[in-house]
Amino acid sequence: MKTVILLFQCADQKGIVAKISDFIFKNGGNIVTADQFSTDPEGGHFFLRIEFYIDEREHTVAALEAGLKPIAGGFKADARLFVKDTPLRMGILVSKADHCLVDLLYLWRSGEIKVDIPFVISNHSDNKALAEQYGIPFHLIKATAGDKKERDILALAKEKSDFLVLARYMQILSGSFIVEYGKPLINIHHSFLPSFKGADPYQQAFDRGVKVIGATAHFVTESLDDGPIITQMVESVSHKDTVNDLVRKGKNLEKHALAQAVRHYIDYRIFKYQNKTIVF
Amino acid sequence: MKTVILLFQCADQKGIVAKISDFIFKNGGNIVTADQFSTDPEGGHFFLRIEFYIDEREHTVAALEAGLKPIAGGFKADARLFVKDTPLRMGILVSKADHCLVDLLYLWRSGEIKVDIPFVISNHSDNKALAEQYGIPFHLIKATAGDKKERDILALAKEKSDFLVLARYMQILSGSFIVEYGKPLINIHHSFLPSFKGADPYQQAFDRGVKVIGATAHFVTESLDDGPIITQMVESVSHKDTVNDLVRKGKNLEKHALAQAVRHYIDYRIFKYQNKTIVF
Amino acid sequence: MKTVILLFQCADQKGIVAKISDFIFKNGGNIVTADQFSTDPEGGHFFLRIEFYIDEREHTVAALEAGLKPIAGGFKADARLFVKDTPLRMGILVSKADHCLVDLLYLWRSGEIKVDIPFVISNHSDNKALAEQYGIPFHLIKATAGDKKERDILALAKEKSDFLVLARYMQILSGSFIVEYGKPLINIHHSFLPSFKGADPYQQAFDRGVKVIGATAHFVTESLDDGPIITQMVESVSHKDTVNDLVRKGKNLEKHALAQAVRHYIDYRIFKYQNKTIVF
Amino acid sequence: MKTVILLFQCADQKGIVAKISDFIFKNGGNIVTADQFSTDPEGGHFFLRIEFYIDEREHTVAALEAGLKPIAGGFKADARLFVKDTPLRMGILVSKADHCLVDLLYLWRSGEIKVDIPFVISNHSDNKALAEQYGIPFHLIKATAGDKKERDILALAKEKSDFLVLARYMQILSGSFIVEYGKPLINIHHSFLPSFKGADPYQQAFDRGVKVIGATAHFVTESLDDGPIITQMVESVSHKDTVNDLVRKGKNLEKHALAQAVRHYIDYRIFKYQNKTIVF
Repeated sequence: MKTVILLFQCADQKGIVAKISDFIFKNGGNIVTADQFSTDPEGGHFFLRIEFYIDEREHTVAALEAGLKPIAGGFKADARLFVKDTPLRMGILVSKADHCLVDLLYLWRSGEIKVDIPFVISNHSDNKALAEQYGIPFHLIKATAGDKKERDILALAKEKSDFLVLARYMQILSGSFIVEYGKPLINIHHSFLPSFKGADPYQQAFDRGVKVIGATAHFVTESLDDGPIITQMVESVSHKDTVNDLVRKGKNLEKHALAQAVRHYIDYRIFKYQNKTIVF
Repeated sequence: MKTVILLFQCADQKGIVAKISDFIFKNGGNIVTADQFSTDPEGGHFFLRIEFYIDEREHTVAALEAGLKPIAGGFKADARLFVKDTPLRMGILVSKADHCLVDLLYLWRSGEIKVDIPFVISNHSDNKALAEQYGIPFHLIKATAGDKKERDILALAKEKSDFLVLARYMQILSGSFIVEYGKPLINIHHSFLPSFKGADPYQQAFDRGVKVIGATAHFVTESLDDGPIITQMVESVSHKDTVNDLVRKGKNLEKHALAQAVRHYIDYRIFKYQNKTIVF
Repeated sequence: MKTVILLFQCADQKGIVAKISDFIFKNGGNIVTADQFSTDPEGGHFFLRIEFYIDEREHTVAALEAGLKPIAGGFKADARLFVKDTPLRMGILVSKADHCLVDLLYLWRSGEIKVDIPFVISNHSDNKALAEQYGIPFHLIKATAGDKKERDILALAKEKSDFLVLARYMQILSGSFIVEYGKPLINIHHSFLPSFKGADPYQQAFDRGVKVIGATAHFVTESLDDGPIITQMVESVSHKDTVNDLVRKGKNLEKHALAQAVRHYIDYRIFKYQNKTIVF
Repeated sequence: MKTVILLFQCADQKGIVAKISDFIFKNGGNIVTADQFSTDPEGGHFFLRIEFYIDEREHTVAALEAGLKPIAGGFKADARLFVKDTPLRMGILVSKADHCLVDLLYLWRSGEIKVDIPFVISNHSDNKALAEQYGIPFHLIKATAGDKKERDILALAKEKSDFLVLARYMQILSGSFIVEYGKPLINIHHSFLPSFKGADPYQQAFDRGVKVIGATAHFVTESLDDGPIITQMVESVSHKDTVNDLVRKGKNLEKHALAQAVRHYIDYRIFKYQNKTIVF
């Protein structure tokens, strides 16, 4: 048995589910779970995720893909098939703060996040020992004022990773980096976006006197801190909390939000659409 | 245009979604939203809710029902069709506490809960003015030690209501009442079930020194406080909170949990299965 | 027995608590609860709230006030005494949306918010019947493009109220209004400030694709939506939620946050300091 | 400068705060923060925690203790002084599950939990490498059906630890162990107590169909799972969550609740009273 995930999106129109579920049925597939969403049932955009398993002795993924093609063509749809449990390669970028990295590595080792981790890249050497302790190659790529060394990062990342996680990486990646990498980047921002963009969000939150703080995991786009939001976590604070308390409470939110976003991503649960996400 | 909701459940098997979505497509239906769940894709129980709209000049609900019958038969399924926005008749039972009743009546008047309210029944007269102010017939049916007057309640409820809401009704209805009424009853229990069943749950919670309290909306079964849970709401408390504070905080949880359960119910989002609920 | 609340603030210095608790002890006071906070124990600002009761046959509030004066003078402190359960007069301003008004009136009638309500002022007549049903004088004061009629509001409010609650009042009050009124105004903003200031915050939140929405009760200052935050409430949302769903979920947050802010205010639990609040 | 924490409790009576704050003032202490609580201002039990700093060149803790003695005697109070940042010795007991242990060790190494960790004791060898990687002595003490080896644990724990943390230790310690150890034990129970006591709480929660799960950190008493609750954390679940999902979500609640309980404990914020806690 092999579990396959179909992600399908197109302009909303009649008969999509009928066509696709018939196709899966005829290929011997047994649907495990299906989710669909339309931004507007009259003239909106339609999203479908179906998880199904097939007996691979009788039906191959290649055959599925070939059969799916004309259906997708008929609906002018973007259709993709993924084999579950084929681990994606998750590259990690990190700076000095280690809490998100520690959490990701722990979840990876304990089997909760099923990925391969081809490398940890950092602009500081602080987390070298940690990465190596888990047997992950660590690359120190120091940005300087004049040269962010994005080409060095790209050289590694493009070939060896399927997506990147910025686990508190404190360098801003350029638009051209994002375009050239061409695959998703997930960032954790230590505020409840869109509040407190930019630097030192906990200090900003402290100064504004908010009563709830948050953390936001989002896809990286060229527009800093404005990419599609995947997950947000919040916690109450009070006048008693110092900036340090916000940082401490925030660390927990950050690692929790980031891990959940990664889990959704590698389970192929996320569609990006118009700077938002649909998370099934 | 008419929006129709299909609730469908049977033993899990291949091809259900294909068959049903094909049926909807052939009847000119446009799917607005669809949810499905299987307790176990290999040999479990399968649940499906599809919301779709049809052009009623071309396709009638009666024709849909006729066409659905053989499909349901083929899968040995329980299939039901509901026309959205045909308001259900929600009978309310209440005792002295008024917060849930006030909230339901407000949500009803402001159009957030689209039901008809044929009556408010109470074993006390405290809420008579409130019900009548909203133009709802109020029936005082006083239980006595020897006679709970369940026959009087049944006489009203069976004929005039599609489901009953116990909005802090402090009488325990007998098993035979529940059987004879034969339609759903939704109760709000003022604790985080299964903790603190029975009387005075806030006092129990205070005595135990919990740090979080809750409220639980659930279907009523013969086994008191053990029916399928629909919604649960929680809030933090501390040593500073007296029993009265728990009651006050709890009132907010109760009305919120009950209103949400009612909303799910009248939107046909709830399946009951093995003393649990699937809430789509 | 009479319960008295002391609010005391000054530059932090040694011996404040000793002096004040000695003073209360010598006046026969029995401390019910005490809270204190310093922005920085070395050179910060100090806040103290003490709730205590006295036997009024032996000790009068007037005598307490006289005795407190030199102590406050010695610390260069701002010290105020309030008699608990002397209801404050809470004026309400509202526009068309009624959910916050309904909640405040319910909590008032049920004794959960112990205030007098001298008037409801609105720029629309929609809520006239509701106010009058509770026996509260309703004043329709229509703002026009050229004249916001702030003088009419002031004429009523200055004399008859101790503080104002903007229970979804959709007119922006001018700085000179706020100065002339000279007493606190509490507003409910339907977003998780500082995100989504200004108009249509739920539409803004929808467009940004946030995964958590909020509501914020805050004191009104001349700088719109930037006043000291008192309470914030949040709730999760997803791609399934339409703008209308955000509005519906938000209504519950708004009334809950506003009611809690009012409760804190009338219990004399709030200090304002540098555009933030200390809420004991 | 040295920061000192006073914990003080006695039957409620007039003048306690006055006496103690005067005492601190006269000893040159500067109060950083103070919290007090009375179960009932008329005839209840009174709790006080004061954190203050002294100039240790002028005032010693020994002198403070001597001076405090007669005051405590006068009020028949239990009074204790602690020097902040003198690390307590936290012994850890663990079985196979490692998530709480990983979290505690991470927080310890990153300075968020300031304790010494003299040992990790386990009835399994799974976590040996982890403990030793952090340089903590690991002791494998295997319980057998006939002999729980409590004497071996006691031999280590009594001498080397100030309190014990059961970080998912799956053996039940006997009443006599608890009595002989004579110091606090903090346990994490993987349910929202008092629901789902005993074995397999996530399976119990799944079977009951609850919509919110929780974790509870509590002091261990002879009555299993009934000790005073320190912290509780909760998270929403739905019909989609399998037992494994509950376990996964629960792991996060458990480590979070346990870490917070430990933090409260080592900051001397917790009073135990009548099977409840006061957490300042």
